[in-house]
Amino acid sequence: MSAPPFAGLTHIGDATSFVDRLLGSIEHIRLFEDFERDEIARLAPHLRCYRAPAGSALIREGEQGDFMLLLIDGKCEIVRRDPEGLPQRIGVAGAGRTLGEMSMIDGEPRFASCIALEETLFAVLDRDGLSRIIAEDPRFGNKLLIELILLLSQRLRVASGKLVDGNATIESV
Amino acid sequence: MSAPPFAGLTHIGDATSFVDRLLGSIEHIRLFEDFERDEIARLAPHLRCYRAPAGSALIREGEQGDFMLLLIDGKCEIVRRDPEGLPQRIGVAGAGRTLGEMSMIDGEPRFASCIALEETLFAVLDRDGLSRIIAEDPRFGNKLLIELILLLSQRLRVASGKLVDGNATIESV
Repeated sequence: MSAPPFAGLTHIGDATSFVDRLLGSIEHIRLFEDFERDEIARLAPHLRCYRAPAGSALIREGEQGDFMLLLIDGKCEIVRRDPEGLPQRIGVAGAGRTLGEMSMIDGEPRFASCIALEETLFAVLDRDGLSRIIAEDPRFGNKLLIELILLLSQRLRVASGKLVDGNATIESV
Repeated sequence: MSAPPFAGLTHIGDATSFVDRLLGSIEHIRLFEDFERDEIARLAPHLRCYRAPAGSALIREGEQGDFMLLLIDGKCEIVRRDPEGLPQRIGVAGAGRTLGEMSMIDGEPRFASCIALEETLFAVLDRDGLSRIIAEDPRFGNKLLIELILLLSQRLRVASGKLVDGNATIESV
C-alpha cells in the first residue's frame, strides 16, 4: 500500500494470527461465505490488520482509495455529505461487513466515509494484495473475484429494489 | 445452457463471425473496454448469438436465469411489475449494454424483464460458458471477472447516488 492511510492507528500485523477469529465471524462475512479454512489461511498473509479507537475515519469520502476493509470486530457509521456539505449518516456496518470494495476495484473516489463508532478491529486488502493473489494463484483469484461479484450483485439488487420502490429508473436486471 | 430460453428466436451461431462487429461496438461495451482483439476472439466461441424480432422477451422478470446478454445491435426496454402487477418501464438499453449479469452470477430470479423494442442482435454468455473460460484459462477468467466487477461497481455507484439523493439508506461505500 503506497502511503498507508492508517498512519495513526495500531498496525497489528497481517491476518495470519486472526485466521481463527476470521473463521469465527465467517458466517457474517459474506465475502468468505464459500471459503474453506485453508483458503482463509491462504488469504490471511495478504491482509493487514489494524485496531482503531472510536471516532477514527477508516475511509474518507472523496479520497482516492485502493483498499477494502473487513470489519472483524466493532462498528462503523457510514456518512456522506449532503448537497449542503453536512455529513449525513446513511448506514451502520458491524462485524463481518466489507467496506470499500468499489474503490479498490475501480479506483474512483470514495462514495462515503466510514467512522468507527467504537474500538474497531479490521483487516485491509489493497489492490496490490489482490493482484498478488491473482498472479500467484489464478484459480484462487477466480474464486475471490466471484465472491466479490456476488457481494456487489447482492448490494445492487438491494439498491435497485429500493430505487424501484421509489419509482426511480434503474440500470440493472 | 439447459433448456435454451431462446427457442423461438433465430440462433445464428457463436460470436466468432461477429468479432469484428463486437470490436466495432467495443467502445460501447463496458465489459470489453479493456480487452484486446485477441481476447474478444478468445471469448467469442463461448458466446451464442441470436436475432430477435421486436416484442421478444429476452429476459423475463422472476424467472431463473443463468446467462447474461450483450446487445450487439438494437434496443430493449427494461420492465418491472409494480406492486399492483402492472409492468412499468424502468429503463432502456441500447447496443453495447450488458444485461442479466446479476442472475448469471448469483442464480437469483431476474429482477426485471427485457423486451426488444426493435429487431435486436445479441450474444449470450451463460454460467457454463463463464465456468469453461475460467477453467481453461484462469488468467483470462480473472480479467473477465474484474471487468464484471467494474461493471457492477459502476452501476452500484449510480444506484447508490440516486438513493442518497432520495435520502434512502444505502449499503455501499
